[in-house]
Amino acid sequence: MIATSSHDLSGSIVTSLNLAPTAQGRLDGLTFTVKDNIDIAEHRTSYGSPAWRASHLPPVENALCVDQLLAAGARCVGKVVADEFTYSLDGESQFFGTPRNAKAPDRIPGGSSSGSASSVGHALANFSICTDSGGSTRVPASLCGLWGMRPSLHRISEAGVLPFMPSVSTVGIIADSLSHLDSSMRVLLRSGSGQAHPIKRLLVLADALAVADNVVQEHAIKALETLSRRTGIPVQTVSFSEISDDAYQLKDCNLEALRDMQTLEFQNTVGNWIETTKPDLGFTFSMAYGNVQSFNRQKALESIVHCERLFELINAYLTPGTVICFPTTPVIAPMKGSLNTMDAVTDFYDRTMTITAFSGVGRLPEISAPLLSINGCPVGLSFAAAHYQDEFLLSAVHHLLA
Amino acid sequence: MIATSSHDLSGSIVTSLNLAPTAQGRLDGLTFTVKDNIDIAEHRTSYGSPAWRASHLPPVENALCVDQLLAAGARCVGKVVADEFTYSLDGESQFFGTPRNAKAPDRIPGGSSSGSASSVGHALANFSICTDSGGSTRVPASLCGLWGMRPSLHRISEAGVLPFMPSVSTVGIIADSLSHLDSSMRVLLRSGSGQAHPIKRLLVLADALAVADNVVQEHAIKALETLSRRTGIPVQTVSFSEISDDAYQLKDCNLEALRDMQTLEFQNTVGNWIETTKPDLGFTFSMAYGNVQSFNRQKALESIVHCERLFELINAYLTPGTVICFPTTPVIAPMKGSLNTMDAVTDFYDRTMTITAFSGVGRLPEISAPLLSINGCPVGLSFAAAHYQDEFLLSAVHHLLA
Repeated sequence: MIATSSHDLSGSIVTSLNLAPTAQGRLDGLTFTVKDNIDIAEHRTSYGSPAWRASHLPPVENALCVDQLLAAGARCVGKVVADEFTYSLDGESQFFGTPRNAKAPDRIPGGSSSGSASSVGHALANFSICTDSGGSTRVPASLCGLWGMRPSLHRISEAGVLPFMPSVSTVGIIADSLSHLDSSMRVLLRSGSGQAHPIKRLLVLADALAVADNVVQEHAIKALETLSRRTGIPVQTVSFSEISDDAYQLKDCNLEALRDMQTLEFQNTVGNWIETTKPDLGFTFSMAYGNVQSFNRQKALESIVHCERLFELINAYLTPGTVICFPTTPVIAPMKGSLNTMDAVTDFYDRTMTITAFSGVGRLPEISAPLLSINGCPVGLSFAAAHYQDEFLLSAVHHLLA
Repeated sequence: MIATSSHDLSGSIVTSLNLAPTAQGRLDGLTFTVKDNIDIAEHRTSYGSPAWRASHLPPVENALCVDQLLAAGARCVGKVVADEFTYSLDGESQFFGTPRNAKAPDRIPGGSSSGSASSVGHALANFSICTDSGGSTRVPASLCGLWGMRPSLHRISEAGVLPFMPSVSTVGIIADSLSHLDSSMRVLLRSGSGQAHPIKRLLVLADALAVADNVVQEHAIKALETLSRRTGIPVQTVSFSEISDDAYQLKDCNLEALRDMQTLEFQNTVGNWIETTKPDLGFTFSMAYGNVQSFNRQKALESIVHCERLFELINAYLTPGTVICFPTTPVIAPMKGSLNTMDAVTDFYDRTMTITAFSGVGRLPEISAPLLSINGCPVGLSFAAAHYQDEFLLSAVHHLLA
């Protein structure tokens, strides 16, 4: 295992840094960490893989998103652990150690932005810049009890972020407060101070509730009732079959849609590097990668047609002023080491990705809010809006939760 | 100079191929070439650079867009020349030879998809799959008298396409007919057979006309008058200051907006590879790259804020059913070797990119139609619509030009 900083009780820091802001701005006084698939000049980017790190020279420039944050007044305090090739949602790293979940230390932090959630959870930084393809920002935010946002696909520049899944991957933020999530995200989105639109409709996605553990479902409904009472905005339940004109179910967003798109694109990026260079791979990743190698590429081409159709249906339904909510993850964080049987792994991934694929195929902005607590363990409640309605979503969540 | 196929009078083919379709579909019987920055399994991708080709192993999979075309019934007949790192709009290649412009053989083909336009212009294929960041699909389509389309940013998967400028680059198509452009593009867009919306407004962008040579301007106006008379749809003139609420001029889309975004992102992708590996560079590219090296990255961060604001303004103005047109390029193809003074280069690039940056910052779909001919030399007339209105644009152009 590669040693992380010996003074770091979180186990999240790969390299301590102290990069001063390059100008003053709306992030003055804030600190941030950077997931280790995002370039910092003169430091090797590991992508969560010692083999990748050893075979790639240090970049000459920061990723554009890092430069945006430094120029807005924030200070970068370190690079943090990512799962191997960011290809995981659990955060149990063989190579860099598993970063601690500050609010549930005997449980996994979630991944692949495990170090981002851990560093913010341990108050080492106000926020962390990370990435999200299948849930890698939202899942650790949910399981560690933090604010997290995956913005609309491609709203934020990915220059200097390692290529992963071009039709799926976004830059994301995990933060210690809604205020810090909002201010850092608006810098990256390059948002003006535009007017907030009113919330016209608040929906809850029934199928996502149904996928969640009963106790998560109950807490989510209770939280929404409280929120509705306080704001006076009614919550309407909607099913995915209503959203899709009876053409699809929620699970169809994942299976034979987004998951195939992810595998197809991963074969062209990291998969290509692995096949041509034959690097040393970790055990857990190797297991998952077997499925990539045996993947039926021809058959999957039909799935990317479904992705486009699902995108259209979801965004036609999410008319301006609509917010849709659901539990970010179906469960609280599993115990460390408990994802050690095929059944346990399959249950965690299938149910989680059934929910996270909704915003994935919709290319939606989604904010996970740390609203639920079950026996002391956090779970997020997510709020999403239509593609490119990032600023509306941020102001709507302020309105709903302030 | 690297020898291309000796039987290829176009000078466009890097490698002759004969990749059979993998299934039948709506592209049955059609042939296509592939720009050499898009992966074909088992063949090295050159990126227009011998140094890049020598240092990168052959990819194991085709780019996803190539697999989509093969699965729809098309046959791939070759890889074609691209400008070095696709960082050019002129198509004069030192390393691979300058592909011939079929309709104006003593003139440049335009770039960076020079081989795509040349191979289609010489009837070696029905269409070519290529890329467009600053005009690399639209400019050669215009100068070679072919159909070309840059789709909305990120509508088509870029998996297996070499990373260039993540916030700007798209996959594109150059084709020998509108019918072949339409059918190949709909495969890549994964469009259903959805209803065509009516054209509600046909606009012409005055500032783009003003940037063009007088003779191009006159021919464009005449073509639009003919089109308007035949279809009964009036053409309204609009200025960029009207589109932007007096906040910007058309040239602001290029300078201190898209061009800076391009340079910032290029520094993170190809620029990083060049700085860390110090490869042999061609003379023309070296000259251009000097500007990348001396670029003020901090100052340019303000430009990417302009990009986002311009995107919002343009798309707020281009309401559903709106088509906006303008000459694709301000000039016919310059004579080969004539871009040999700083003045000539600056004039060609500045005026061309003032026009092409409109769809660039707008993330718009744009179709260049081969409608104008000046002393036997072609120039395209472009039609654009709002972001993600690709299918509307295709059907609108059919309606306007059928």
